[in-house]
Amino acid sequence: MKIEGRNAVLELLKTDKEIEKILMEKGAQGSLGRIFAEARRRNIRVQFAEKAALDRESPSGRHQGVIAFAADYAYSELEDIIADKKSPSGGFVILCDGMQDVHNLGSVLRAAECAGADGVVIPKTGSAQVNESVLRISEGAAEHVRVARVTNLVRAIESLQAAGYWVYGLEADGEDIYGQDLTGNIALVVGGEDSGLKRLTREKCDKVLSLPMYGKINSLNASVALGAACYEAVRQRR
Amino acid sequence: MKIEGRNAVLELLKTDKEIEKILMEKGAQGSLGRIFAEARRRNIRVQFAEKAALDRESPSGRHQGVIAFAADYAYSELEDIIADKKSPSGGFVILCDGMQDVHNLGSVLRAAECAGADGVVIPKTGSAQVNESVLRISEGAAEHVRVARVTNLVRAIESLQAAGYWVYGLEADGEDIYGQDLTGNIALVVGGEDSGLKRLTREKCDKVLSLPMYGKINSLNASVALGAACYEAVRQRR
Repeated sequence: MKIEGRNAVLELLKTDKEIEKILMEKGAQGSLGRIFAEARRRNIRVQFAEKAALDRESPSGRHQGVIAFAADYAYSELEDIIADKKSPSGGFVILCDGMQDVHNLGSVLRAAECAGADGVVIPKTGSAQVNESVLRISEGAAEHVRVARVTNLVRAIESLQAAGYWVYGLEADGEDIYGQDLTGNIALVVGGEDSGLKRLTREKCDKVLSLPMYGKINSLNASVALGAACYEAVRQRR
Repeated sequence: MKIEGRNAVLELLKTDKEIEKILMEKGAQGSLGRIFAEARRRNIRVQFAEKAALDRESPSGRHQGVIAFAADYAYSELEDIIADKKSPSGGFVILCDGMQDVHNLGSVLRAAECAGADGVVIPKTGSAQVNESVLRISEGAAEHVRVARVTNLVRAIESLQAAGYWVYGLEADGEDIYGQDLTGNIALVVGGEDSGLKRLTREKCDKVLSLPMYGKINSLNASVALGAACYEAVRQRR
C-alpha cells in the first residue's frame, strides 16, 4: 500500500515495517532531507521523480513530495491487545462501532496513540478500514497503535468483559462521565457519525456515559467526543 | 450562501436567519419530512427537484437531498462575545490561530457549542472561514455559536486580557493542563494543523498548556486537542 505525506512517511520509517521503495519529488525541500537520510540509513531505495509522477501515484493527491510503497497495514488480534497492556494502571481499549469517515478514524487512532491506549478495535464491515487515507490522516499514529479487526463487535465486547474490562459506551443520553471511575481495565466504545451506537452494542455495554452538553446541538464530532473521554480517563489513571 | 445536509438545514431552520428558499429532492424520505413541515410553518418556499438538479447546486456533493439558500454567515464582534457571557462561572472563548482545515474548524465549532463556550475567534487571513463546508461539517453548530473574525489575533488576545480573561495557548511543550485552574474568565488558543501556535501568539498567551502524551506521536488532531481541553474546562467549571 502507498503511504504519503511527510509526517506519515517519517513515522513509517520509525517502525520496522517493510518498505519497498520511497518516491520523492525532485528538488523538494524541508523535511524531505530527513526522510532521505533515514531511508538511506535503512537501505531503502529512494527514487526521485517529477511532481507529475507523484501526482499520478498519489491516492489522495496530497503527497507533499513523498510516497512510500510499503507492505499492507498489519492488523493485530484483540487477544494481543488484551495481553499487552502498556500501563500498570490497567488495560485501555477503544472500540469504534461503525465509524465511516476516514477523518474520524484517523483522528481516533491519533487520540488512542497519544492517550496511551493499548489498541483500537474496528468491525470488518460497515466501518472505515485502515487504508491509505486513514494512515495519512493519522499522521503515522496507525503505525504505533494496534488495530484489531473483528467480525462481530458485540463478541469483542464479551471477550473484553471476560478478561475483566469495564466496557463504557459513549452516547448522548447516558450517565455523566465525570461521576465515573475510569481506572482499571476499561474499554470505551464510540459510535458512527450519524447513527451513534448500534442497539446491540449499546445493550452489551456495562454502562453508557455522556459528556455534558450545554448547547442547542447535542452531538460532538465522534473523534472529538472520543478524545475528550479518553483524556478524562488519562486524567484519572495517572 | 448554500447550506446543505439534513442536520445543517434543520439547525438553520431553528434560527431566525433569512432563508430565501429550500431545494428538496423529489421523493426523498426520512427527516426531509420534518424539514418540509418546518419550512412551511415559517413560510419558506420549498422547491422540489430531481437529484441531478441538487447535485448541480451542491457545493460539496453531499447534500442528502436538501439545500437551503440563505443569507451569508453573520459574524459577530469580539466585544459582543465578551459582553454576552452564557455562564455565571465566567467567560469562555476559543481562538483558532490559523486553522486551515474545514473539518477541524467545523469540529471546533461543534465542540465550542456543546461545551457552552461564548464564542470562537478566527483571523480574517491565513485561516479557514465559515463557508458552506464548515457549516455542513459543524452540523449546524455554527448557527448557534458566535464567531468573530479579527484582523489580528494578538490584538484579540490583548482585548480579552484587558477584559479580565486568562488566555491559555494549547501546545505540546507547555505546563500540564490538569494542574491548572480553568474557572473564571478563560480563553483557549489552538494552533493550525501543521504549524501549531504562531510565535507572537504564543508569547502573548498568559500560559501554554499541554495534554499529557503517552505515545510516540506527540500531536493530537487540532480539533480533538481543543475538544479535550474544552471538556477539562467544562469539568472544572460546573
